[in-house]
Amino acid sequence: MHSKIFKATPQEQLKEIKRGVVEILPESDLLNKLENSYNSDKPLIIKFGADPSRPDIHLGHTVTIQKLKVFQDLGHEVHFLIGDFTAQIGDPTGRSKTRVQLSPEEVTENAKTYQEQIFKILDPKKTKIRFNSHWLNQINLREFLQILMTTTVSQLITREDFAARFSAEQPIYLHEFMYPILQGYDSVAMKADVEFGGTDQKFNLLMGRHLQKCFQQPEQVLIIMPILEGLDGVQKMSKSYDNYIALTDSPKDMFGKLMSISDDLMWRYYDLLSALSTDEIKELLGKVQQNVVHPFAAKKQLAVEIVDRYHGSGAGAREHQQFDELFSKRVVDTAKIPVTDVSVDPSGQINLVTLLVEKGFAKSRTNARSLIQQKAIKIDGVVVSQETFHPEIGKEYLLRAGKLHFLKFKV
Amino acid sequence: MHSKIFKATPQEQLKEIKRGVVEILPESDLLNKLENSYNSDKPLIIKFGADPSRPDIHLGHTVTIQKLKVFQDLGHEVHFLIGDFTAQIGDPTGRSKTRVQLSPEEVTENAKTYQEQIFKILDPKKTKIRFNSHWLNQINLREFLQILMTTTVSQLITREDFAARFSAEQPIYLHEFMYPILQGYDSVAMKADVEFGGTDQKFNLLMGRHLQKCFQQPEQVLIIMPILEGLDGVQKMSKSYDNYIALTDSPKDMFGKLMSISDDLMWRYYDLLSALSTDEIKELLGKVQQNVVHPFAAKKQLAVEIVDRYHGSGAGAREHQQFDELFSKRVVDTAKIPVTDVSVDPSGQINLVTLLVEKGFAKSRTNARSLIQQKAIKIDGVVVSQETFHPEIGKEYLLRAGKLHFLKFKV
Repeated sequence: MHSKIFKATPQEQLKEIKRGVVEILPESDLLNKLENSYNSDKPLIIKFGADPSRPDIHLGHTVTIQKLKVFQDLGHEVHFLIGDFTAQIGDPTGRSKTRVQLSPEEVTENAKTYQEQIFKILDPKKTKIRFNSHWLNQINLREFLQILMTTTVSQLITREDFAARFSAEQPIYLHEFMYPILQGYDSVAMKADVEFGGTDQKFNLLMGRHLQKCFQQPEQVLIIMPILEGLDGVQKMSKSYDNYIALTDSPKDMFGKLMSISDDLMWRYYDLLSALSTDEIKELLGKVQQNVVHPFAAKKQLAVEIVDRYHGSGAGAREHQQFDELFSKRVVDTAKIPVTDVSVDPSGQINLVTLLVEKGFAKSRTNARSLIQQKAIKIDGVVVSQETFHPEIGKEYLLRAGKLHFLKFKV
Repeated sequence: MHSKIFKATPQEQLKEIKRGVVEILPESDLLNKLENSYNSDKPLIIKFGADPSRPDIHLGHTVTIQKLKVFQDLGHEVHFLIGDFTAQIGDPTGRSKTRVQLSPEEVTENAKTYQEQIFKILDPKKTKIRFNSHWLNQINLREFLQILMTTTVSQLITREDFAARFSAEQPIYLHEFMYPILQGYDSVAMKADVEFGGTDQKFNLLMGRHLQKCFQQPEQVLIIMPILEGLDGVQKMSKSYDNYIALTDSPKDMFGKLMSISDDLMWRYYDLLSALSTDEIKELLGKVQQNVVHPFAAKKQLAVEIVDRYHGSGAGAREHQQFDELFSKRVVDTAKIPVTDVSVDPSGQINLVTLLVEKGFAKSRTNARSLIQQKAIKIDGVVVSQETFHPEIGKEYLLRAGKLHFLKFKV
């Protein structure tokens, strides 16, 4: 028996879905759902919620959105939920600084911005944009109290941040306390089969399962995605920490921000963002470790890929070129760097291999020699071809190692 | 300056209100409100809430209702709140056994029953019957969440029963958790100046103050009334404990139930229910302690007063008579009481004064003599006028002391 709309079997689909995912909860439920969907030729409803008070999607979100695209490619339907209802709830006490009250117009505007961004990745034909005000505006107090009968105070208090605040005697306002219930009820209203979220959303996603069960619906499957670190490599990528790359960032900003991350973080970004296969990434990493490829070059390759994705093919290469040009111009600025005294050997020569290692421009003597062989070392703009250099006493020289490192020295 | 509608000054009103009250919280606020009301000729709004799932008002409730009447007599307005909204909320899980879901028709029916009962005490012209569904039905989820912003989880958890259940890990369902908020919001909607409740309602009444403050209203004053013990003298009077006297009880049941309470409890009932002044009650108590009035007689007096109040003047006296007759008929049954051997003096006579004291029919020899003088002692239906009695040997006699005590004896 073959499905009309699904090309991949449930098992094949599951394999594809699992790649790079932190947790599927429970996996057996997902396989069941995939089988039922396959046998009935009915796409699964994949829920993904977004906060309309922050319409800029950043690269952190794309980790999940790309996985949503995988579901679409397999034949399923993405229901992109704009949480406009809670976004329109103000805090009359002015107590909450993080909560921004939005007007209906702002929500509509932000929702449009959202769509423009996600459709850079998602297939519009297999995407439904939904607003939770659509059902939450219809709920009256009586119905809400009936929803509340499903859950106890203790159940909610177990949510990690609530528990921490409760025991630290920091206030938890009752409306905040209700939000997991509202998010769970969204899953009921949407009849979601799968909900996506980061590890920090696990509790709220489980609330969806709980409420669906109470409302006699099949329970949604949780797919927990890894959380991408921000540019600082420490906090998760987030607007609040100002460590993010927005999809609406200009090609220049996007390229520049990507070039600013640490080498370690670069590999994390490769894993979570690049379209390269796991094997291809492994190969590139190997080359960098063997000094065949400079980390700076690997970083540029990633930046080109990401900029191409969000600004069209060729945009990455353009930024690459401009970045290099800008970078060379910086040499002029480096004229201001202080002069370092360097020692010479009895014959008055500088050992460049030793110097490169001492200054941290090379990781080892072998690395230093290979830099010289690669013509990456220049003194006063002239490529160095030997491992020693004979300076005039008292004269200032400018040494440049690759594009990154500069040393002004005299003897 | 004199008020047009208030005869008593604020200070005089306060004195009248304070009588028999457990606590006024805060008293200074009440005096302020009485003064403002007096100066502006505007009656205060006195809130009293009732649970429409239990339409039978019992004597426990009347402790408060009589105080409401005091407010009316002083010129104020009673707003009698029927909590029909929550009464119509079902528990779809069937978990709560105590919660009875009422249909709108049942609520209307119960509300009628309520009115009939309270108007036995209250002045209908100064009473407004209000239903909280009137405003709570209008609240949508968004508005409710805005109300919830006023309060924290910790604030609610401090309510005694919540705290106990929380620490005992017994479930507190979220809808129950919301009820204090709803009750508090009722005070906002009603613009209540004063709310009445028992000591067990103090938390919910304070929630009314809290919410009124959040909604920029003057805060209501709490009047905490004493809680009347039920017929058992242990638990508070309540339908759940089946130890109550309902206002709808027949005159016979009402009289009979009042006659069944202990002597100690009788004085508590005098304090909380009788129209007698404190001095009059003190005087009656003194007479009983000096054996001038029998406790049984004092109890009958209370029963007559209460039955008269709820079944019309004269109803108490009728029940009194019927009660006595029923009691006298019991003599026939006492034919079955066992025969006691009694000793005689050398001249073959029984000393009745000694016998009455020995058998506990009189508290002292003086009391025994006064019973004989009052013609309360009969032997075989014949009033005894002397302190001695000469029996035939072997013959059975029936002695009766008052209406209560019987002794069958022979020599």
